[in-house]
Amino acid sequence: MDISTIIGLILGIVFMVWGIYESGDISSYWDVAAVIITLGGTLASTLTSFPMRDMGNIFRVAKKAFIYTEISLDKVISDIISLANIARKEGLLSLEEYANNLKDDFLSKGIMLIVDGTEPELVRNIMETELLYLEERHASGQKLFETAASFAPAFGMIGTLIGLINMLKTLEDPDTIGPSMSVALVTTFYGSVLANVIFLPLAKKLKVRNDEEILAKELMVEGLLAIQAGENPRIIEEKLKTFIPPSMRKNYREQIEREGA
Amino acid sequence: MDISTIIGLILGIVFMVWGIYESGDISSYWDVAAVIITLGGTLASTLTSFPMRDMGNIFRVAKKAFIYTEISLDKVISDIISLANIARKEGLLSLEEYANNLKDDFLSKGIMLIVDGTEPELVRNIMETELLYLEERHASGQKLFETAASFAPAFGMIGTLIGLINMLKTLEDPDTIGPSMSVALVTTFYGSVLANVIFLPLAKKLKVRNDEEILAKELMVEGLLAIQAGENPRIIEEKLKTFIPPSMRKNYREQIEREGA
Amino acid sequence: MDISTIIGLILGIVFMVWGIYESGDISSYWDVAAVIITLGGTLASTLTSFPMRDMGNIFRVAKKAFIYTEISLDKVISDIISLANIARKEGLLSLEEYANNLKDDFLSKGIMLIVDGTEPELVRNIMETELLYLEERHASGQKLFETAASFAPAFGMIGTLIGLINMLKTLEDPDTIGPSMSVALVTTFYGSVLANVIFLPLAKKLKVRNDEEILAKELMVEGLLAIQAGENPRIIEEKLKTFIPPSMRKNYREQIEREGA
Amino acid sequence: MDISTIIGLILGIVFMVWGIYESGDISSYWDVAAVIITLGGTLASTLTSFPMRDMGNIFRVAKKAFIYTEISLDKVISDIISLANIARKEGLLSLEEYANNLKDDFLSKGIMLIVDGTEPELVRNIMETELLYLEERHASGQKLFETAASFAPAFGMIGTLIGLINMLKTLEDPDTIGPSMSVALVTTFYGSVLANVIFLPLAKKLKVRNDEEILAKELMVEGLLAIQAGENPRIIEEKLKTFIPPSMRKNYREQIEREGA
Amino acid sequence: MDISTIIGLILGIVFMVWGIYESGDISSYWDVAAVIITLGGTLASTLTSFPMRDMGNIFRVAKKAFIYTEISLDKVISDIISLANIARKEGLLSLEEYANNLKDDFLSKGIMLIVDGTEPELVRNIMETELLYLEERHASGQKLFETAASFAPAFGMIGTLIGLINMLKTLEDPDTIGPSMSVALVTTFYGSVLANVIFLPLAKKLKVRNDEEILAKELMVEGLLAIQAGENPRIIEEKLKTFIPPSMRKNYREQIEREGA
Repeated sequence: MDISTIIGLILGIVFMVWGIYESGDISSYWDVAAVIITLGGTLASTLTSFPMRDMGNIFRVAKKAFIYTEISLDKVISDIISLANIARKEGLLSLEEYANNLKDDFLSKGIMLIVDGTEPELVRNIMETELLYLEERHASGQKLFETAASFAPAFGMIGTLIGLINMLKTLEDPDTIGPSMSVALVTTFYGSVLANVIFLPLAKKLKVRNDEEILAKELMVEGLLAIQAGENPRIIEEKLKTFIPPSMRKNYREQIEREGA
Repeated sequence: MDISTIIGLILGIVFMVWGIYESGDISSYWDVAAVIITLGGTLASTLTSFPMRDMGNIFRVAKKAFIYTEISLDKVISDIISLANIARKEGLLSLEEYANNLKDDFLSKGIMLIVDGTEPELVRNIMETELLYLEERHASGQKLFETAASFAPAFGMIGTLIGLINMLKTLEDPDTIGPSMSVALVTTFYGSVLANVIFLPLAKKLKVRNDEEILAKELMVEGLLAIQAGENPRIIEEKLKTFIPPSMRKNYREQIEREGA
Repeated sequence: MDISTIIGLILGIVFMVWGIYESGDISSYWDVAAVIITLGGTLASTLTSFPMRDMGNIFRVAKKAFIYTEISLDKVISDIISLANIARKEGLLSLEEYANNLKDDFLSKGIMLIVDGTEPELVRNIMETELLYLEERHASGQKLFETAASFAPAFGMIGTLIGLINMLKTLEDPDTIGPSMSVALVTTFYGSVLANVIFLPLAKKLKVRNDEEILAKELMVEGLLAIQAGENPRIIEEKLKTFIPPSMRKNYREQIEREGA
Repeated sequence: MDISTIIGLILGIVFMVWGIYESGDISSYWDVAAVIITLGGTLASTLTSFPMRDMGNIFRVAKKAFIYTEISLDKVISDIISLANIARKEGLLSLEEYANNLKDDFLSKGIMLIVDGTEPELVRNIMETELLYLEERHASGQKLFETAASFAPAFGMIGTLIGLINMLKTLEDPDTIGPSMSVALVTTFYGSVLANVIFLPLAKKLKVRNDEEILAKELMVEGLLAIQAGENPRIIEEKLKTFIPPSMRKNYREQIEREGA
Repeated sequence: MDISTIIGLILGIVFMVWGIYESGDISSYWDVAAVIITLGGTLASTLTSFPMRDMGNIFRVAKKAFIYTEISLDKVISDIISLANIARKEGLLSLEEYANNLKDDFLSKGIMLIVDGTEPELVRNIMETELLYLEERHASGQKLFETAASFAPAFGMIGTLIGLINMLKTLEDPDTIGPSMSVALVTTFYGSVLANVIFLPLAKKLKVRNDEEILAKELMVEGLLAIQAGENPRIIEEKLKTFIPPSMRKNYREQIEREGA
């Protein structure tokens, strides 16, 4: 559950509505043509920009910004050090049974590669290619939201242009100018709110989440290769701790021994 | 057939027309001068920006956004694993006859290089140079649409400036101000719609298609080099699967054996 | 204490208020709806864009732009040359007791790695990974301010749109148009001032401070590796001096000897 | 002769004039102050931005966008394969006499280096440094036009501001507002047309031309090094063909033999 | 003396003033509040963005755009070839006395490193680190001007907003609207002129000057390393000439011999 996404979106809408009520009436902000032009146009151009398949994934991608199990780098490090201890005491092959208990597919795949006796160079190669294409697949989700965020204000402006052109063409009663312009501006309002309250923030959140996941997986790759190389768990701990902020670091080996006791 | 391009473009135009009819009349949106300035200006400046040859290719390039045979990464992987099995059993030279049956020129060229006994370093070198220049040629197609997308709104604004300058110069009857400004704004409308409904989305779609093609060809290069190195089909499968999303992965070797049975 | 941040912010606010008093009255610039829309909207969308944890760090990050102990590259160089002298005379192991007296955790961690006999390649690897992730953590602080700086003017414009839509809808008394538009523009004013007086300058200052810290730490890494390699202090001095401007360079060894005498 | 530059520029001007005549009179578009501010300002700021020397080169650089002998990659490849055949049959030294007949200075310089027995590493080094600085010199020509393209609309807007400030200051007769604003807008029109019809398209064309020249020279470097390494002409042909689109490829060796026959 | 900076700035101001006089009166362009908001705000936010120290250097940095001794690449090449000749005839050690006569500190520092018998790898390392940090220090000067150039139009717009808010609030006499708006627009004018006539062009000029200095120093590094490696002066000449445009190249060795005769 990504609490900041949910609070942020709710607050964003609450603040906009509150701001409207301070001096006006929310009913002026509902306009069918504006919805058609802004939302419809943004949807259509995003559809043209991406393959059908990416559009189908949009909800699965968006979900990641709302429901998200924080990856605990702390947990990843202590898992890897535990594995390193086991490998030291019982040999690399003994890791196989532990691999099946791991919740992370990436980590267990890596362990299976090691257990199978794959050469270190190849393990790194396979794990890093996997990471690279994971990153690219995630990036295409972000790009979809960024693209929508760039089309929304453009269609907002197009809608206002349509409103102005229609109004100016039949300019007869000066009293209708005000309300007509008001309606014309609603489309620009829609486009700006869609982009700045929804699409852009979600694109940014997806990027942050992706960066976190990649960092955790880089940590796993480094850890796995160190385990395979038979490195001292103390050195492995030292290496992996450099990935996290000093304030989060602790003595993992002592903790593991305590827990193991 | 790229269904999302076609649906996206049709929806984009439908939504714009629908939005116009909600409050006005489509006939106000036809203006010869606006067409000359926006479309003509965009065409002229794009012509100045690119060599004649690139302009000639524009329809061939644009076609790629509409008619497109999805490259099945799945199919590429199972093709390569089949080739690896053949190479294992019957030797590298036996690949020659299979190469001629392949629909992909890039893959069959690579196999011919291997069959000819070209050194691995040179095979990689030749295949990657080919990929690099393929990417550059595709990029120049995208750039053409991106350039048009940046000129269209600029000429839209220039057209509106022309309309305003003409109108303000001869400001006599206040009743004509409205309709004249309406006409002036039509050019900005044209420019924005051209850019946001057509040029930008097509440029983005071409980029996505190009990325997919490059990915498939990178997969082929990795696969070919692994075949040449005589690697175990199991390892080749493991390597190639890292290029595709986990949800798409399956046991290719079993499938191939089943089909071969 | 970062004097330029404090003077800059105070001057920025003073100049704005002064400019307002030259032709108007500061009281026109207080508007609850404008505060809700601009500040509230910026806060909400920044919240959606980042994880809760980053929001919690915002004050700790912002503090760095105000309270900052300038890192003296001069001091870092002479510290490292002193350490090099000690290592030369008393051996690498003797550095351990000096390491505890160092105020910089990064430098003392590096020395402990050397004293522990870690291999040079691994020392560089550990220190540089640490630097890389330090840089990334700092960058996320800057990005938060940059994001806020991009949302503030957008919500300023959204607020003005709301003001205009409300005003135009109920356009009855022409005398109220002026004051209503005045209020509508206040939101754009808020957004521009927030972005240009506060968020953007702070993001830039954080970037400069981060660059300085990274430079100092790169200097330490180079120095430590040279000490471990047993390089001549004269060469070390020559190497490290290239990191600082010629006008700041001096004869560190003579100075150290003088002080040591 | 770069036909698309010339047609593009002429069409651009024709379309603008045509668009003006559709609803107005070309005479409203001539304004001395507008020329001074837009053209003068752009010239002055471009002058401040670049050294005098670059300004002197501006016509020589601009000429490249108009008069341009298309480099035939086809011809370059067959030239290199001919040279490779000669080197194979008569030895590297025999290339000297052919080098003098080549129109391309870069290629003949490369051959002289080979004939002089320069080491391959050094040949590559010298040729690539030459390419790098050629690219940088060309880039400075493009940058000049890009800079002018960014200043032109800015000075257009400054001119309109000047027009508005002057007009509003002495607002007495409401009948003069229209024509005065018309004149003020002419400067923005100038700036936009200068940037979008002339400067930006020329900068883009120069970039395309530069990329083509660099590609041809990279091809020469690869070819020369392969000749020096005594590689088989068949392999050289295979390598060089990867630089050009498949549709342009042909059997160069057969063609050369036919012509030689 | 950088003639183009001075002419450019003077022309820029002359053209603006001339443009103003064509239709108005320069006295309308002096407004205390506008100066406070635009110049003051830009100064304050630039102050917040950079450390005090960088602000102190601003005049020293700006001076580089005005007073500049063109670095003659021609002279650098012939100096290095002379040094190479001396090194060949009288040995590397004999360079020491010539080093003291050189005006360029960078070159003489490099020679001292060679004379001291520093290893080539280390010489390159030291010289290139020096270049890297020289470039970074210069870049921070450019960034200061670029930052000011981005703040100036923003504060110009803020000033116009203040003017409009003040005016609209107390809209009583319609006759004062024109002059008040005129005053409000003066701030936008200030911001645009500051950015486009002064800050942006100076930032660009500083970048060009920096690039030239770095190029000259890269040339020196290549030359020094070639001298240290005892390379043939003919090869050194060939290498260094690739850094300059073909039209500037000449036969340096002949010239040196002639002069030496």
